[in-house]
Amino acid sequence: MSTRDDQPSESANAGGEQVVTPWDVAGGADGKIDYAKLVNEFGCSTIDDALIARIEKVTGCRAHPFLRRGMFFAHRELDQIVTAYEKGEKFYLYTGRGPSSEALHLGHLIPFHFTRWLQEAFKVPLVIQLTDDEKFLWKSLKLEDARRLARENAKDIIACGFDPRRTFIFSDVNYMCTPFYLNVLKIAKCVTFNQARGIFGFSGESNIGQVGFPPTQAAPAFPDCFPHLFGTDKKSLRCLIPCAIDQDPYFRMTRDAAPRIGGYKPALIESRFFPALKGESGKMSASDPTSAIYVTDTPKQIKDKVNKYAFSGGRLTVEEHREKGGDLEVDISWKWLNFFMDDDDKLRTIGEAYGSGAMLSGEIKKELVECLTPMIVAHQEARAKVSDAVVDQFFSTAPRDFDSMFGELVGDAPAPSEGPVSFQGGENLVASNAPVPAVAGGEGNEGDDAGAAAAGGDQPLSKSELKRIAKEKQIAEKKAAKAAEKAAKAAAAAQ
Amino acid sequence: MSTRDDQPSESANAGGEQVVTPWDVAGGADGKIDYAKLVNEFGCSTIDDALIARIEKVTGCRAHPFLRRGMFFAHRELDQIVTAYEKGEKFYLYTGRGPSSEALHLGHLIPFHFTRWLQEAFKVPLVIQLTDDEKFLWKSLKLEDARRLARENAKDIIACGFDPRRTFIFSDVNYMCTPFYLNVLKIAKCVTFNQARGIFGFSGESNIGQVGFPPTQAAPAFPDCFPHLFGTDKKSLRCLIPCAIDQDPYFRMTRDAAPRIGGYKPALIESRFFPALKGESGKMSASDPTSAIYVTDTPKQIKDKVNKYAFSGGRLTVEEHREKGGDLEVDISWKWLNFFMDDDDKLRTIGEAYGSGAMLSGEIKKELVECLTPMIVAHQEARAKVSDAVVDQFFSTAPRDFDSMFGELVGDAPAPSEGPVSFQGGENLVASNAPVPAVAGGEGNEGDDAGAAAAGGDQPLSKSELKRIAKEKQIAEKKAAKAAEKAAKAAAAAQ
Repeated sequence: MSTRDDQPSESANAGGEQVVTPWDVAGGADGKIDYAKLVNEFGCSTIDDALIARIEKVTGCRAHPFLRRGMFFAHRELDQIVTAYEKGEKFYLYTGRGPSSEALHLGHLIPFHFTRWLQEAFKVPLVIQLTDDEKFLWKSLKLEDARRLARENAKDIIACGFDPRRTFIFSDVNYMCTPFYLNVLKIAKCVTFNQARGIFGFSGESNIGQVGFPPTQAAPAFPDCFPHLFGTDKKSLRCLIPCAIDQDPYFRMTRDAAPRIGGYKPALIESRFFPALKGESGKMSASDPTSAIYVTDTPKQIKDKVNKYAFSGGRLTVEEHREKGGDLEVDISWKWLNFFMDDDDKLRTIGEAYGSGAMLSGEIKKELVECLTPMIVAHQEARAKVSDAVVDQFFSTAPRDFDSMFGELVGDAPAPSEGPVSFQGGENLVASNAPVPAVAGGEGNEGDDAGAAAAGGDQPLSKSELKRIAKEKQIAEKKAAKAAEKAAKAAAAAQ
Repeated sequence: MSTRDDQPSESANAGGEQVVTPWDVAGGADGKIDYAKLVNEFGCSTIDDALIARIEKVTGCRAHPFLRRGMFFAHRELDQIVTAYEKGEKFYLYTGRGPSSEALHLGHLIPFHFTRWLQEAFKVPLVIQLTDDEKFLWKSLKLEDARRLARENAKDIIACGFDPRRTFIFSDVNYMCTPFYLNVLKIAKCVTFNQARGIFGFSGESNIGQVGFPPTQAAPAFPDCFPHLFGTDKKSLRCLIPCAIDQDPYFRMTRDAAPRIGGYKPALIESRFFPALKGESGKMSASDPTSAIYVTDTPKQIKDKVNKYAFSGGRLTVEEHREKGGDLEVDISWKWLNFFMDDDDKLRTIGEAYGSGAMLSGEIKKELVECLTPMIVAHQEARAKVSDAVVDQFFSTAPRDFDSMFGELVGDAPAPSEGPVSFQGGENLVASNAPVPAVAGGEGNEGDDAGAAAAGGDQPLSKSELKRIAKEKQIAEKKAAKAAEKAAKAAAAAQ
């Protein structure tokens, strides 16, 4: 998705109409996004207090600030996920990023911080897609560079604190394999060029890689893309996708395709856009380093940028400010504190002080600097610990134990194992204990043609599966025979 | 390619203009294809006697009837392939089939018989693509059925006599992997929707899988799609593609993309269309079993179909026939004998006798039946011997020895090995002795970003490569240590 990498800031649209697509976000005449209108247009729902309360109750966790303060404000069928979860049904999380820039800015961290919270609250597995293919197709970027950026960005994602025991990170180029490709094909067959043009704004000048790409972002919403995690049964797991609301069109398409390819419609939990440093209608741009705070910025850079560039709702003179108070509607320091300050009481106090004029612009900026600096320093420390071996551990397609990815994890994550790691999936890599398809060849259900039977299932095995097992047995026997021979020789030599 | 599976027969176009695309073939007002016009329009070249003589000289083989009788009549840069070969340069062959039907008809065998001859004459490796993905996207076919048909059709292809030591057959769905996908992406970025619409006739109602498909057929023209065969150097091998001329648009697109992605333009050798049983302007259709001879037909079916349905150039009465002679321009028995009768002298005699009226329609049909029957019986016998294990052998992505695929092969092909076989490629499967990229990061050359260095190369290794090797070494050492431990235990137990 083009804007996964570049969380769009709002800007006024010349025509006065707001435009929100995965590639363009422009506010209405006043430069602002009318989120209520967006929810209405897209046909998604607003997250209400009752739903938040249900989430808190079933997870036993206090809602994340992004949730309780309305940054993640819209959804599709999140209530159904919660209902299913209340009944003991399993689901997994799917999010992603388009790796087109070297360093991430604060806005890029929002979905990952929130996803980590969701994962820890619900204790479920997570897949994170890095769309190096998409970045190559859309940007003036070499494939080798897109692939390198995918690994670099993965380090920042891992630094957000994910656990490798239930988190799989993949680059599309690395992972592309039969089970993934099967889903891409099935989804692609459901969408015409005209439909894709309507959803994504393609034109005759779009390259055919771009036109063919959306199913690649849609596919990970179906668990049988990942037999090494979830087995081969598309009906076995629901999926919940945390993302910014501009990605909604991708997943509307995915949800339309879902019943036709025999899968659950993925549920969505959608965020507002992160406001840019220079003001809500400005842009955070990699070409202008003063437009955003990056995760690589030093404490001095953070302080300088906030003081110089953070758009202020303060008044022209101290006298006027004391009289009218700061304008919370436009003040970026206030808005960012709402994202990153966990302490509700302290936040309320700051808001009251600043809004009443008791607190000056320089003072609220100081609060923001003091909030951001330790957070970014901690991120940098965490990232420094993410070695190549740790990245390999998250990228590894070694089959997992299905059950072990759900519920409480005991102790620390294991150290990355030594030895070569494969990043590519396959039909033969199937998680142990994964659910097996209930009925083969169901109506309109093509989810069962991935071919490889899940290990440990009690379904009748196909001919080719039986053959494969027989062959594996033969190989194992041969190996054993060879080992025995070797041992005998060694024994003879030892005597 | 939509017609790889369904070698198109010619039919009159209502507009009177001939149309030849990978999906539609219609002759001009008279129902016939004007091949000279086609060569001119497409911008390819005619194969002349001098080029055939050069091929015979450099290979030391008499030209195949399809070549010396002009069935394979057009080319692109075939002369350059021959020149390079004369200088000792290597190349590989690439052909394919769209697996949409259960049984192949005679027209389907043409490219494979000819490709086998090319392979044996030039002693080079061959890759055969089965586009199960394409058939799924275009036809009302389940993916599982397209995949099954790919394996079934592979048996007929193998029965044409290919040698597994230098022939790799793959289904797109099975093989889809990083090195393949890298080439698909690079080609896709070079082609706009408008261009693809011009070349392939896509419309707004085409599904986005169809729009995105052409690069998947183009990619195998680049050797680094197959590191397990050819290594990772796109510059190391030229490619020659035997195909019917309706596939020319695919490979025009491929040739346009080639320099932009750092590869050789593939050369082409192109055939006319195989005439349908009921006459050149009829259609061979799977829904009408009397329209073609299938490789599954019994001798009785062959005899009956030829006698009943083969369009005859004979005259209405014996008297008229004796007087005017048979019409060789339209007689299907005569045309088919030109394809399948190897003996030039006998063929000439038949042509003279039939054309002069000395031979009657029933008699030339008898000649055809006697020519076809043993050929089809032999095909059926050969196909019966193609076990699943043999198919696996051709599909296997186990790395080959590069050099061993060129030049004379000694002895018979080995029996298929036991044990599980992987059909999916990967960056880590690299042929031994394969050429390595000469210079990294050359101008416009993205052929070197596949990542995995070829084994045995003397190029400086990348950091990650060195790391991988170190890891592999560690693993090998661990294994050795374990084996030694086991042996010691066994020795102890034996004492």
